[in-house]
Amino acid sequence: MSLPQQKPQATDLEQCLSELRALLGDRLSTASDVRQLHGKDASFHEVHPPDAVAFVKSNEEVAEIVKSCVRHRIPIIPFGSGTSLEGHIAALHGGISLDLSRMSQVLEVNENDLDCRVQAGVTRKQLNEHLRSANLFFPIDPGADASIGGMTATRASGTNAVRYGTMRENVLGLTVINAEGRILKTGTRSRKSSAGYDLTRLLVGSEGTLGIITEIQLRLHGIPEAISAAVCSFETLAGAVNTVISVMQSGLPVARVELLDEVQMDALNQYSNLDYPKKPTLFFEFNGTQRWVEEQSQLVGELAGKNGGGSFRWATDEAEREKLWDARHDAYYAAMALKPGCKGWPTDVCVPISRLAECILETRADIDASNLTVPIVGHVGDGNFHLLFLIDPANEAEDLKQFQQLNDRLIERALKMGGTCTGEHGVGIGKIHYMRAEHGESVEMMRQIKQALDPMNLFNPGKLVPA
Amino acid sequence: MSLPQQKPQATDLEQCLSELRALLGDRLSTASDVRQLHGKDASFHEVHPPDAVAFVKSNEEVAEIVKSCVRHRIPIIPFGSGTSLEGHIAALHGGISLDLSRMSQVLEVNENDLDCRVQAGVTRKQLNEHLRSANLFFPIDPGADASIGGMTATRASGTNAVRYGTMRENVLGLTVINAEGRILKTGTRSRKSSAGYDLTRLLVGSEGTLGIITEIQLRLHGIPEAISAAVCSFETLAGAVNTVISVMQSGLPVARVELLDEVQMDALNQYSNLDYPKKPTLFFEFNGTQRWVEEQSQLVGELAGKNGGGSFRWATDEAEREKLWDARHDAYYAAMALKPGCKGWPTDVCVPISRLAECILETRADIDASNLTVPIVGHVGDGNFHLLFLIDPANEAEDLKQFQQLNDRLIERALKMGGTCTGEHGVGIGKIHYMRAEHGESVEMMRQIKQALDPMNLFNPGKLVPA
Repeated sequence: MSLPQQKPQATDLEQCLSELRALLGDRLSTASDVRQLHGKDASFHEVHPPDAVAFVKSNEEVAEIVKSCVRHRIPIIPFGSGTSLEGHIAALHGGISLDLSRMSQVLEVNENDLDCRVQAGVTRKQLNEHLRSANLFFPIDPGADASIGGMTATRASGTNAVRYGTMRENVLGLTVINAEGRILKTGTRSRKSSAGYDLTRLLVGSEGTLGIITEIQLRLHGIPEAISAAVCSFETLAGAVNTVISVMQSGLPVARVELLDEVQMDALNQYSNLDYPKKPTLFFEFNGTQRWVEEQSQLVGELAGKNGGGSFRWATDEAEREKLWDARHDAYYAAMALKPGCKGWPTDVCVPISRLAECILETRADIDASNLTVPIVGHVGDGNFHLLFLIDPANEAEDLKQFQQLNDRLIERALKMGGTCTGEHGVGIGKIHYMRAEHGESVEMMRQIKQALDPMNLFNPGKLVPA
Repeated sequence: MSLPQQKPQATDLEQCLSELRALLGDRLSTASDVRQLHGKDASFHEVHPPDAVAFVKSNEEVAEIVKSCVRHRIPIIPFGSGTSLEGHIAALHGGISLDLSRMSQVLEVNENDLDCRVQAGVTRKQLNEHLRSANLFFPIDPGADASIGGMTATRASGTNAVRYGTMRENVLGLTVINAEGRILKTGTRSRKSSAGYDLTRLLVGSEGTLGIITEIQLRLHGIPEAISAAVCSFETLAGAVNTVISVMQSGLPVARVELLDEVQMDALNQYSNLDYPKKPTLFFEFNGTQRWVEEQSQLVGELAGKNGGGSFRWATDEAEREKLWDARHDAYYAAMALKPGCKGWPTDVCVPISRLAECILETRADIDASNLTVPIVGHVGDGNFHLLFLIDPANEAEDLKQFQQLNDRLIERALKMGGTCTGEHGVGIGKIHYMRAEHGESVEMMRQIKQALDPMNLFNPGKLVPA
């Protein structure tokens, strides 16, 4: 079975656009700059502009748009904040970019149940601003200020996942518009359920290929009584990674544990005007009661010491901590600044923790043998790490070729170790050709599901499921 | 769209049985007692014996059986330990009961990664025996010594879910035999992934209707340095439930918090020869370092005191703790012993924690108004609680009618409060008629998935997806 790929006929497209114009008025745009902006994500992937951009405001509008697009066989590509990394929003076959950024209401916050419901266009920073007065927070933090809808669709995670889980663990339910233009609800507000297929988890990470996610019910967490962060440098990368392995095996619930290698630390010092040693470094955070945070810090400090770690440099007050984590979240921009004018190609893999040291060290050796400047950072508590390839526009073809080979070897290495080709960035178009290597014949099961729920292949065609 | 329901033709069945006999020899049984045993679970649901029982030993055998059954259009009902509660294993349309209990090998334990791979027939107690020497444990504990395959298929949880999650959070990957008789693998050993549809989570809780689960990769946990358990009686049910709500909102990671109402405590005292007060009671467990366990206990004790709780009765050494939790796990048998000779009908719902007190109190009032003896127990940290209906065989028709009405009202109440019709028992046949009330039109999406993955409706037909 192969999935059909649509290219809209001009007349079909015209009819569809005329229906959408009647529905949306000037919230339907065919302006070139708007289309360009919606055909490109935050990485190096080529622009594929949609034929038009629909700025929607309600579930009902999305449902009407889906019905019109299905009638005229026009592809629909949901768009949140445009910060995805694997070409997820490229309109490969033209069609409508469904921009959900104006669906940006926090619909409800249930303080007593630690949950909330948001529209898909709410961003993670907006949500956390909203929650602050209730002393609650939503922990999932990919680097960018992504939309909750996009984070759901790509199964995002970030620095807090080691303690609080990823979008997989933190989405309780969804509103989704299916291929018939019906408004469906999945999940409930209860913390667990055995009532039928887990449609919520099927849609989390489906990258807009099975339906349009318009509302998300999220788990929230209380802001801990005490929070403490620390930075610790190591003489060797192996020492840093082995510390992480020991911490994870100890069962201590560290809230964050991030690795930045010496290349990345150098970039960070330059970019953020900091003075950390240019050595492999771990950034830790501990959450809990005052006493429990102290005990965790002490126990982790002992484990770091055994692996050649230096003393902890603490950041206990909020301003200091914010500076530290802003620096961590700026890692991408700091690394980009290493080669001004370059395009960035971030990639990530995830492996079982016991293979993490080996995987990172082999990757570091592979990079060094290629004489390239490639920083490594990682959410290493999960076994997840990232490389950033810097593409020189003056040498683009050669760079792309070399990085593609490095990426192929990285993913082959991760899969051999029992890992995955992407821990948190998703598949899009950038990783679609690794799906069979990772999943084998299970890809066929994905295809059967895609075919069943989107028989005309109009929802974000060409992504996730290989042809 | 409606799912076809098969009744095997005699000649088709004969041909299939002859193929299976050639494959399995005396591991295919058509003996009446074996068939009876495989057509009935641990609850009151009627016996629906299969036409034959196949005792399988390998993935390859399961694949061959599926192919033969598909060729001859014979239903296949996977069977683990027979301890499910909603008629999951009833052979409604005859066919083959696929008994996986002889696939009982622990295939690998990765101590450093805190994971393992088991065959579907391994039971939870067998697994924990196996893990003890490595100082690891698998936390999910439904009352019965269920098979890991069955626990996966029903998305089981139990007393530890409040801290360690359910099968949803603890299954990393699966081997599954699909409707074409192919042996598929889902997931990897990495802790997180954004690589494609979450087939693992789709199959967890699918109750044998989408494929046959034969191997499970599980997350494990280190046995904590310190474990402490305590029992606390309350003057009122509201006081006990409100304590749980306060604890959950505090974010303290209690490992277990179980509610037993006064009816259940009376039953427990009689059955296990104990002397607890006949009052609403909470059973707590705290895990962590010595200091952290002490701090958690103290903080939870303060919250209980504010809600009218008595002093904590401690069980710190292992033998005492085991006695306490054995008593809790015996709650079902203890309640059954209240009316010797009765059949048990356990039911469960799950609601947002803020509605828990209201839901339990309304349910208690509803029971009391009916002049029935119905104990309430619950994994209340999750908002999950259970009733046990005791059916007198001498008055079966009347009892069934009355309990059905009580169950209908219970579920209506839970759904109205944003809950689910089953927190952990599953759908089977017992809750199938509540699926539309809970999921609305999303049931159609479940049906599309079922149709796509099992087009002839041979995998456990008549369960989970309403006709």
